[in-house]
Amino acid sequence: MNQVKVIKIGGNVVDNPVLLHDFLENFSKIPGRKVLVHGGGVMASQMQKQLGMVPEMVEGRRVTDADTLRIVTMVYAGWCNKQIVSMLQGFGCNALGFSGADGNLIRSEKRPPVEMAGRVVDFGFVGDVRMVNTDLLETILDAGMVPVVCAITHDCEGHLLNTNADTVASSLAIALAGAESVELVYCFEKDGVLYDKDDDDTVIPSLTREDFAALKAEGRVAAGMIPKLENSFAAISAGVSSVVIKHAANILENYGTVLK
Amino acid sequence: MNQVKVIKIGGNVVDNPVLLHDFLENFSKIPGRKVLVHGGGVMASQMQKQLGMVPEMVEGRRVTDADTLRIVTMVYAGWCNKQIVSMLQGFGCNALGFSGADGNLIRSEKRPPVEMAGRVVDFGFVGDVRMVNTDLLETILDAGMVPVVCAITHDCEGHLLNTNADTVASSLAIALAGAESVELVYCFEKDGVLYDKDDDDTVIPSLTREDFAALKAEGRVAAGMIPKLENSFAAISAGVSSVVIKHAANILENYGTVLK
Repeated sequence: MNQVKVIKIGGNVVDNPVLLHDFLENFSKIPGRKVLVHGGGVMASQMQKQLGMVPEMVEGRRVTDADTLRIVTMVYAGWCNKQIVSMLQGFGCNALGFSGADGNLIRSEKRPPVEMAGRVVDFGFVGDVRMVNTDLLETILDAGMVPVVCAITHDCEGHLLNTNADTVASSLAIALAGAESVELVYCFEKDGVLYDKDDDDTVIPSLTREDFAALKAEGRVAAGMIPKLENSFAAISAGVSSVVIKHAANILENYGTVLK
Repeated sequence: MNQVKVIKIGGNVVDNPVLLHDFLENFSKIPGRKVLVHGGGVMASQMQKQLGMVPEMVEGRRVTDADTLRIVTMVYAGWCNKQIVSMLQGFGCNALGFSGADGNLIRSEKRPPVEMAGRVVDFGFVGDVRMVNTDLLETILDAGMVPVVCAITHDCEGHLLNTNADTVASSLAIALAGAESVELVYCFEKDGVLYDKDDDDTVIPSLTREDFAALKAEGRVAAGMIPKLENSFAAISAGVSSVVIKHAANILENYGTVLK
């Protein structure tokens, strides 16, 4: 069975030139089949502000009107994606950039208005993933290329949609898990899941669903980490072999939290 | 021998929602192998102005400093390319977007400062095409997909470069001409090459190199058309079967100027 790594980097990594450079140089050294998924939210918010717009977030998700869709598409699929692809090419890694519209890689559905935090929130042009074109991913991987995927998807009817990058990564990992052994890696700017959220030296090396439930009950998991972990365990339930949460600087090291 | 059409649309088409929609609907109906190359200069200039920058052009070419490179990459590879790809997907055409960095499709070389118009001009991050990855293009076409290529290239050393979209189109056409019969089509907002440049009803249906030389001697060719025609005849010399210059609204019609 083929093995593939699906690695996700967040906007804080993409926006940090030194960390991004070092991450991509290390990423290019990872042997075998691999997919990179990236965010770019920090830069999208900066560009919105430069254009006099006010970014609106609800529980960490961006409300996306038509102007915002144009900005996030420019930033994620344009600047971030092409910068990453050209840097990887410079490191000898044959990267090929994708949005979900390209080759119909990821079809999503526009999210209807939802009740959240006691009010009705219309996220606008935000899409929830419905289908991944696994054949295309396998074709690109078989050809020795490395898909670099941004978090813009489409509805197959001519419309782009803004999609959460963590979800894009887990959706690709789950889709590939039907045919390959998949490791899903979330890279961010912490060393892993912390036992004491205020102490960076308390990385938990390995976490089961039961451990997670116990930590949550103790109030030991940072609020922002809870959806990421729930998402991760859902990916494992759906066939992904393992999920690793680690620092972007440690992509070549065995240091981080392994979820099983 | 396979046949392929390489069709280029300029920034005036991309920036016109009605014309773009109709063009893409018609483009999706063209049978057989096809490649779309697009500009986006009008929108890039608008975005520069929105961000308080002053677009600087020398003889129709954009001087590209680091900030401008970021803008053109966002606009061409991000908004324009993904909007076109998603609209084509909506019309049932399996489009896949590319910059020259993706899969190392187009390698270019940063242009050194040149003497132009009596002074030394440093175009900055502008690239002249040096190599086209024909194998990748053939692989994508063989898989039934339609490459949609923006005019951003790379130097294989980690740097993106801004490149003229007409040149990208002719470079792709020339590269494919080694293995296929290639028709190169330049679409713009005129019906073709005009005998009387002030009268839209004087489209020249067919033009040889000798005709062009005679028209040029008579002062009958619009200044902006001269480099396009020189470029086109160079493509024919390099093996492209024919070049057609026509209105973007007429992509399915036999109306325009055929260069042979």
